[in-house]
Amino acid sequence: METIGNLLTALPPAREEERFRDILRRPGCRIEQIVSHGQVTPVDRPYCQAHDEWVLVLAGAARVEMAGGETTLTAGDHLFIPANLSHRVTYTDPGQPTVWLAVHIGEAASDHQ
Amino acid sequence: METIGNLLTALPPAREEERFRDILRRPGCRIEQIVSHGQVTPVDRPYCQAHDEWVLVLAGAARVEMAGGETTLTAGDHLFIPANLSHRVTYTDPGQPTVWLAVHIGEAASDHQ
Repeated sequence: METIGNLLTALPPAREEERFRDILRRPGCRIEQIVSHGQVTPVDRPYCQAHDEWVLVLAGAARVEMAGGETTLTAGDHLFIPANLSHRVTYTDPGQPTVWLAVHIGEAASDHQ
Repeated sequence: METIGNLLTALPPAREEERFRDILRRPGCRIEQIVSHGQVTPVDRPYCQAHDEWVLVLAGAARVEMAGGETTLTAGDHLFIPANLSHRVTYTDPGQPTVWLAVHIGEAASDHQ
């Protein structure tokens, strides 16, 4: 874990695949940087996890579908995703990196990859 | 608590005083937006809290002094502030709002104002 860092510079290339990086891990709280570049969540494999998640888009643009609605997110937009609610990323900008901050709250230690 | 929002638009005016707003509160995790506009922490009243804190600058510029060093923070820069470590904000840009995201981890319910 780095004490200091930057989430917007020296981004890992993400065109081939989304990039996930833990920024901070503490009991009950994991902070993660995600870099997307055009990826979406497959229709048949939505996310659904047993813990609350809060996401913030730092750069780029995305859309998230959950609870029957779709939300567009650009820089500064945040979204709370309650535990056990199925959700999908339906769009990330194919023309630039989309940088997310995700805060996983009360996650079981065995619950993330 | 809002399910959806934006941390960079419709900022509260902060020239007169720093503005603090809880974005999410969950047991063991509080996410806060702070807007500064030139303020610094008084030399004789440094921050020192019993819980870990992680801060991210979303816009503007700031400097934080802790453990004998001073760190400059601009957009995307993050800093981990361990529990019980005295720290001070020694600069926030007087010419524009500085927007912080602060994640308070394992904070006692009675520990924040």
